[in-house]
Amino acid sequence: MSLLDKIDFTKGLIPAIIQDYKNNEVLMLAFMDKKALSKTLESKTTWFWSRSRKEYWNKGATSGNFQYVKEVYIDCDEDTILIKVEQIGSACHTKNRSCFYRRIL
Amino acid sequence: MSLLDKIDFTKGLIPAIIQDYKNNEVLMLAFMDKKALSKTLESKTTWFWSRSRKEYWNKGATSGNFQYVKEVYIDCDEDTILIKVEQIGSACHTKNRSCFYRRIL
Repeated sequence: MSLLDKIDFTKGLIPAIIQDYKNNEVLMLAFMDKKALSKTLESKTTWFWSRSRKEYWNKGATSGNFQYVKEVYIDCDEDTILIKVEQIGSACHTKNRSCFYRRIL
Repeated sequence: MSLLDKIDFTKGLIPAIIQDYKNNEVLMLAFMDKKALSKTLESKTTWFWSRSRKEYWNKGATSGNFQYVKEVYIDCDEDTILIKVEQIGSACHTKNRSCFYRRIL
């Protein structure tokens, strides 16, 4: 059994944290099912499941802002994934580098 | 309307990414509802909703490994939160500093 098979999708989609592999800035969070994760590992670019559009999306396919996968980690519960990427351009559709550009505290 | 009120809980619980405020290491991810987030902002220590135990938990209350809140960010969609903390001891119940201690790629 590979570690990929160990990942627990029984609670539904799993959150994937996307982090800059150079400076560890958290860029965004999106959701994956098993197929999205498998496509991510295969293509070495990030694939997610869009909860609003109900479709797979390959980050960067339309904007050019691809995320090249450098390292992948799973957490102790095997229901969250952390992906370190080389981010082309900005991660956020607002053109901010990270989606977490607003500090509330 | 405060930014807290703007956070979108309509899809259910929101993921909270917990990051070390000193070196930006991602320590863990857990879920919050509005009450957990409110208790977090109030107490300046992290509170989560446990999906398995169906109860609130104040990280560190039993282990002593508190997470002192330093900075809080919301993402562009307002349905994910990033919290930078001072982590006492280890974030993971396995005694690893981070829950993401296993690399799969």
